[in-house]
Amino acid sequence: MRRILSGHGASRGSALGRARVRLPHVLDVAEERLDAELVDDEIERLHAAIDVVRGEMRALHDRLHGAMAHEVGEFLDLHALLLDDPELIAGLDDLIRTGRYTADYALRLQRDRIAAVFAGMDDAYLRTRIDDIDQIVGRIHAALHKRDADLQGIAGDILVTDNVSPSELVQLHSQGVMAVVTAAGSPLSHTAILARSLHVPLVIGAAQALQKVNDGDVLAVDGGSGLVILEPDADDLRAHRARVQEHARERKQLHRLRREPTRTLDGVDIRLWANAESREDVAEAHALGAAGVGLYRTEFLFMQRPADARMTLPDEDEQFRAYRDLVLGMTGRTVTIRTLDIGADKADGTALALPGEPNPAMGLRGVRLSLARDALFRTQLRAILRASAYGPVRVLIPMVSGREEVIAVRARIKDVQRELRTEGFAIAESLPVGAMIEVPSAAIALQTFIGDVDFLSIGTNDLVQYLLAADRNNDALGELYSPLHPAVLRLIHGVIRAARTHDKPVAVCGEMAGDPLFAPVLLALGLEEFSLHPGTLLELRRAIRSFDLAWLRARSASLLRARDSASIQRWLAQATG
Amino acid sequence: MRRILSGHGASRGSALGRARVRLPHVLDVAEERLDAELVDDEIERLHAAIDVVRGEMRALHDRLHGAMAHEVGEFLDLHALLLDDPELIAGLDDLIRTGRYTADYALRLQRDRIAAVFAGMDDAYLRTRIDDIDQIVGRIHAALHKRDADLQGIAGDILVTDNVSPSELVQLHSQGVMAVVTAAGSPLSHTAILARSLHVPLVIGAAQALQKVNDGDVLAVDGGSGLVILEPDADDLRAHRARVQEHARERKQLHRLRREPTRTLDGVDIRLWANAESREDVAEAHALGAAGVGLYRTEFLFMQRPADARMTLPDEDEQFRAYRDLVLGMTGRTVTIRTLDIGADKADGTALALPGEPNPAMGLRGVRLSLARDALFRTQLRAILRASAYGPVRVLIPMVSGREEVIAVRARIKDVQRELRTEGFAIAESLPVGAMIEVPSAAIALQTFIGDVDFLSIGTNDLVQYLLAADRNNDALGELYSPLHPAVLRLIHGVIRAARTHDKPVAVCGEMAGDPLFAPVLLALGLEEFSLHPGTLLELRRAIRSFDLAWLRARSASLLRARDSASIQRWLAQATG
Repeated sequence: MRRILSGHGASRGSALGRARVRLPHVLDVAEERLDAELVDDEIERLHAAIDVVRGEMRALHDRLHGAMAHEVGEFLDLHALLLDDPELIAGLDDLIRTGRYTADYALRLQRDRIAAVFAGMDDAYLRTRIDDIDQIVGRIHAALHKRDADLQGIAGDILVTDNVSPSELVQLHSQGVMAVVTAAGSPLSHTAILARSLHVPLVIGAAQALQKVNDGDVLAVDGGSGLVILEPDADDLRAHRARVQEHARERKQLHRLRREPTRTLDGVDIRLWANAESREDVAEAHALGAAGVGLYRTEFLFMQRPADARMTLPDEDEQFRAYRDLVLGMTGRTVTIRTLDIGADKADGTALALPGEPNPAMGLRGVRLSLARDALFRTQLRAILRASAYGPVRVLIPMVSGREEVIAVRARIKDVQRELRTEGFAIAESLPVGAMIEVPSAAIALQTFIGDVDFLSIGTNDLVQYLLAADRNNDALGELYSPLHPAVLRLIHGVIRAARTHDKPVAVCGEMAGDPLFAPVLLALGLEEFSLHPGTLLELRRAIRSFDLAWLRARSASLLRARDSASIQRWLAQATG
Repeated sequence: MRRILSGHGASRGSALGRARVRLPHVLDVAEERLDAELVDDEIERLHAAIDVVRGEMRALHDRLHGAMAHEVGEFLDLHALLLDDPELIAGLDDLIRTGRYTADYALRLQRDRIAAVFAGMDDAYLRTRIDDIDQIVGRIHAALHKRDADLQGIAGDILVTDNVSPSELVQLHSQGVMAVVTAAGSPLSHTAILARSLHVPLVIGAAQALQKVNDGDVLAVDGGSGLVILEPDADDLRAHRARVQEHARERKQLHRLRREPTRTLDGVDIRLWANAESREDVAEAHALGAAGVGLYRTEFLFMQRPADARMTLPDEDEQFRAYRDLVLGMTGRTVTIRTLDIGADKADGTALALPGEPNPAMGLRGVRLSLARDALFRTQLRAILRASAYGPVRVLIPMVSGREEVIAVRARIKDVQRELRTEGFAIAESLPVGAMIEVPSAAIALQTFIGDVDFLSIGTNDLVQYLLAADRNNDALGELYSPLHPAVLRLIHGVIRAARTHDKPVAVCGEMAGDPLFAPVLLALGLEEFSLHPGTLLELRRAIRSFDLAWLRARSASLLRARDSASIQRWLAQATG
């Protein structure tokens, strides 16, 4: 039956496709009771799910091969054995029968009961064994809803769920999801920003969606207006087609901006740099008239290794070739190479062998790791310097927290320059060194080292999360992570002002820079350089061309006086309205 | 043989006792080769260690009881079975024999080899099974050095190790360690600050200690001068006794300050508040003349439950009794109760059931959790307000990031006040509400909400870690976590200045406030209220009485101009010299 489910449009684009419904995690399952006559069906549903999991465990076992297959296999078998465990499973049957609970809720009760027993154990090692139970409980819950844990095969479908974390959205996008509809969320969330930059249509706050939509239902989603239509009729389909055509027309108009300057209404030119990693990014950056590459993240060379060299690090020559090709690809425009920005959370499955950390976002990462691993850092600096012979290169240091690190990096660079020249390599006369401003202390104590750097790049993604002490990938924090916090704007403003006083170029390179929504704020704060993925460069150019810079800057005082995100959003509505 | 091992004194106090040596973790083991004739002994040493672990696993199994004993037992057995695994163990024998490696290094090589195999598996679930191997490898390594993983039975001994994390130091102190000697470390590290506040003698940077000292050796340690004497002679023992007597004399002189005011040389009175949780803390705070309780951490009520109620939360009456007793114990002096400051990292084994987070320090904690769990928060506010009938109470909100949270908390308090009055409870006319300044955004955007709070408390422990994006419990970051970073001082100075402008009282309540070393810095920045554990209150009072406040404040400009920690340390040396 046709039904309209309204939400808020968070990322434009229209999609028509089948729904894939993902229910919240088992631990959030609410108490729900069954009618007496449904009890037997529910127990049967549970056991069907358990059978599915049993099959999965067997399949996993069959995929094991090579060293340690025997040992790991035994653990798999033991996890599979829990499926026959009377403590776990018979208890579930009883709960469904006597309590008339749904299988989901019974699973939750049983899991929590067992967790409480484990929590009471006096040995830390024993306490961690609850993980074994959770592995199995999670699998049963997934099977109850006929979904695989990884949402494989989502290509061409529309995901309907309570909320999506930023990392999930990236994965969904790479798996070819058509659109996403969530019951919760905010248009300023990290997920929404990402959806816009990946051009994934997203409707948030569609509160009824989880109740009304079933797997396989047809949905028409409009990420602009927030309209979601269940089982659309002929009129709806016509409207959908019209929206798709309108969108195509818009893309075409946008395409015409490829050769236009990024100039405000009052004639001020704004520099747009590209964040680029792949050959395609570089080609697009070039074609769109980017000033150069504002951010080349070298960690991908370490994280995405060829299959036959997975557990090795890229050596000097391999890195050199990558950097040189990048420089050649930009044919004379400046390329900004950021040194390795990796930590325990991203180094998994690499040869870096970083020990796990309780808070990896505040751990040994970025320049800290580079300074702690001298050979690693020198290899990278040698490769970057050798590439500097082929065109203009700047080096950008991530996670700078203060002056000491800048001085230490400068000293290493000088060392390596001397070394390379002695060895007879041709390298550039000088290598401009910039600091990422993403650790709050670097922004606050900028005066202590601004004389020691040649340029600055504000990394808003990390800066916002440290300033607010809010992990941007943590769904539980909801709307707390926001680039529109007064503290964020004041700090960015301070950095831009200091950079101007000291005549140092400064760009913003976080997601905030790539989202046209935030452009008036950054322009008002005095920013004149943006670094962003080429995928949204034209949209940003269009937005910038629609603003009168003097008008925005005249309103910066009222922007900086705003007392909360709501006031900043009102300012934004006035600026764009 | 007598030997002098020099380090740097990081926490005063003298100790004489036997050494307990803890070697670095297996993953940090360096390559080391054996003479051919030692190979058989080394293999024997390895197998003796494996036998010890086998015994430990059996003992663990025997301690299992109650529900799930069967299932967990099977996993234990499987871990134990790895000890007989040819892939793991026979490989070790081979490595020792053919490579002439030490057992430690062979263990590391073997572990890394297996980890590489696991990392190459294409299933996330299978990859995590490396944890099973690591459990066993860690146990064998511990047994090789005849230590139990938890350093049980350290009471009365002196720990010699490479480095100690802050949480380990707290544990060691509660287990009765006499003194700690480390090869690495800094006097400004979080560990050193803690050692001084717990009065654990600490010598750092004793580079030779790990090579020269063996388990059971007698050591004389002086945490003042940094002198460590191995196998001391009669003269050394006499010198040790003299130091102990001198220390006792000093304690006595300190004791005389109990009834003295905390007044600077130039006659300015400084307010000292107590951080107090236990009945003993409250009694001591009272006896030492503390202005009141500046910080009562309510999370202990949630974390340390009686055995028969471990998996429950303290209800309103239980909380009310605790807060009322605190208020009564301070007989009319003001008591500052901080609402629940707990997150996923501290909620383990409580009934709060918080899901794990990748970065719990930047997760759902403090006021975020309180606002997300309405019933939990209301119960606590009701209990605090009911206690306010018995004496002056202030409420302090942790993890405030901006204005919205303050407004939301104020609204809840107003609600609960109305509710309680309707129900006929006697409660105080008004309840002063303060904000912890520990999230950087709150410090930077203080102007947006300072009018909405009655007082401020700067939590330097968290503020420093967020500002520097450096987890203060992460050993790998070494000296990076430092309260003497220019950004920390500038931000604290800004908060104190804003508080003065708006006539709001402001205290510092992190470890920085309790360490006399930092007192001249905080006094120079304008601080007039300190909140600290009663254990170092008299030492701080003595320090404050030795300073001329006007002299310090006249030097605040040069302090704020310092460009790095080294310059700040030089300033500090001048101020105290």
